[in-house]
Amino acid sequence: MTTGKGSNGADRPTRTGRRPGQSGARAAILAAARTRFSDAGFDKTSVRAIATDAGVDPALVHHYFGTKQGLFAAVVELPVDPDTTLRIIDSVPLEELGENIIRAVVAVWDSPAGPGIVAVVRSMLAGNDDPALARTFILEVVLERVRQRIASADDDGRARVALVGSQMIGVLVARKIIAVEPMASMPASDLVAAVGPTLQRYLTGDIGQKPS
Amino acid sequence: MTTGKGSNGADRPTRTGRRPGQSGARAAILAAARTRFSDAGFDKTSVRAIATDAGVDPALVHHYFGTKQGLFAAVVELPVDPDTTLRIIDSVPLEELGENIIRAVVAVWDSPAGPGIVAVVRSMLAGNDDPALARTFILEVVLERVRQRIASADDDGRARVALVGSQMIGVLVARKIIAVEPMASMPASDLVAAVGPTLQRYLTGDIGQKPS
Repeated sequence: MTTGKGSNGADRPTRTGRRPGQSGARAAILAAARTRFSDAGFDKTSVRAIATDAGVDPALVHHYFGTKQGLFAAVVELPVDPDTTLRIIDSVPLEELGENIIRAVVAVWDSPAGPGIVAVVRSMLAGNDDPALARTFILEVVLERVRQRIASADDDGRARVALVGSQMIGVLVARKIIAVEPMASMPASDLVAAVGPTLQRYLTGDIGQKPS
Repeated sequence: MTTGKGSNGADRPTRTGRRPGQSGARAAILAAARTRFSDAGFDKTSVRAIATDAGVDPALVHHYFGTKQGLFAAVVELPVDPDTTLRIIDSVPLEELGENIIRAVVAVWDSPAGPGIVAVVRSMLAGNDDPALARTFILEVVLERVRQRIASADDDGRARVALVGSQMIGVLVARKIIAVEPMASMPASDLVAAVGPTLQRYLTGDIGQKPS
């Protein structure tokens, strides 16, 4: 799957032997996607609309970027497709969701892809990038998937997943951006033990509020 | 007490009738303090050393900035002296520390001083300011005060306060920087109910790790 970082070299032929014309199409898709995602968010943007704006067939979008999520990851220049991590959310037992989220996410941050992700988040927090893209990424791509897992008839889960997001952003900042010790060099298993129960309470426990 | 924001106008006579020479001294103190705090951190920097660097008497530093904390707040251009909030940490019962921290801090963020604080934190996270200043502020000014309150013979409390810091930074980002709903417009009391128990567990509960 084609992900991230490629947009800078989009006009040069790549090792896989793509012709310049195709790379130009790729760049056009990325530009159209950036505008659409920024204006309308992730949910309300269709691959078909992006393809139309870019003057290409929707199949070409899928050829280059796989899913809409893969395209989004490329637009915000994430070095990994979040889908890989998000799939865990759908497969683990509900009562183990908290520890699995922190374990999976920290594994990605601590991987070779980590510095690229930190750079993206840092840029988002600084407001250097489009803040609408940051909001749509956090709300519609990451948290929405979790929300669907925990939502019930009398609690839409929005407050719960926002709280989870707040703790995860805080762990990223403490571990990777400000590098607050001992969190910066703590074994991942210690982080899971400390933060997992927090996330689990936010997801399924008593958070002291009437459901919204 | 003299706090924040004054450095930009330091060379102009102020309404209180200070002469330019005195304002020049104030600017020299700020410049010396910025260098010292950045090089050695908050703890290891003395008001006396800053005064020497600035070529003034230590009494003049206290005259302009009150405490060393007040001077630090002016260096990082915080619109409030953190000491006012931090005093709460020393006065509340240990088992109510978590809810009191989130209540006091959110009250400051939601006050007229909030936007100024958000701007400072945003700049720190983006790495626009000196990262050493961000680290020393978080670790030595804010978290150290909490750590002293909870430290015991067999647990220095460093991991505990770092976890508290991570959740607080996350709440700030979610509520004030990215504005993730419903956290952005949630009543403060709901935030206290949701986040207070998290902080309390980090401070005094089982965080699943051997004490460091």
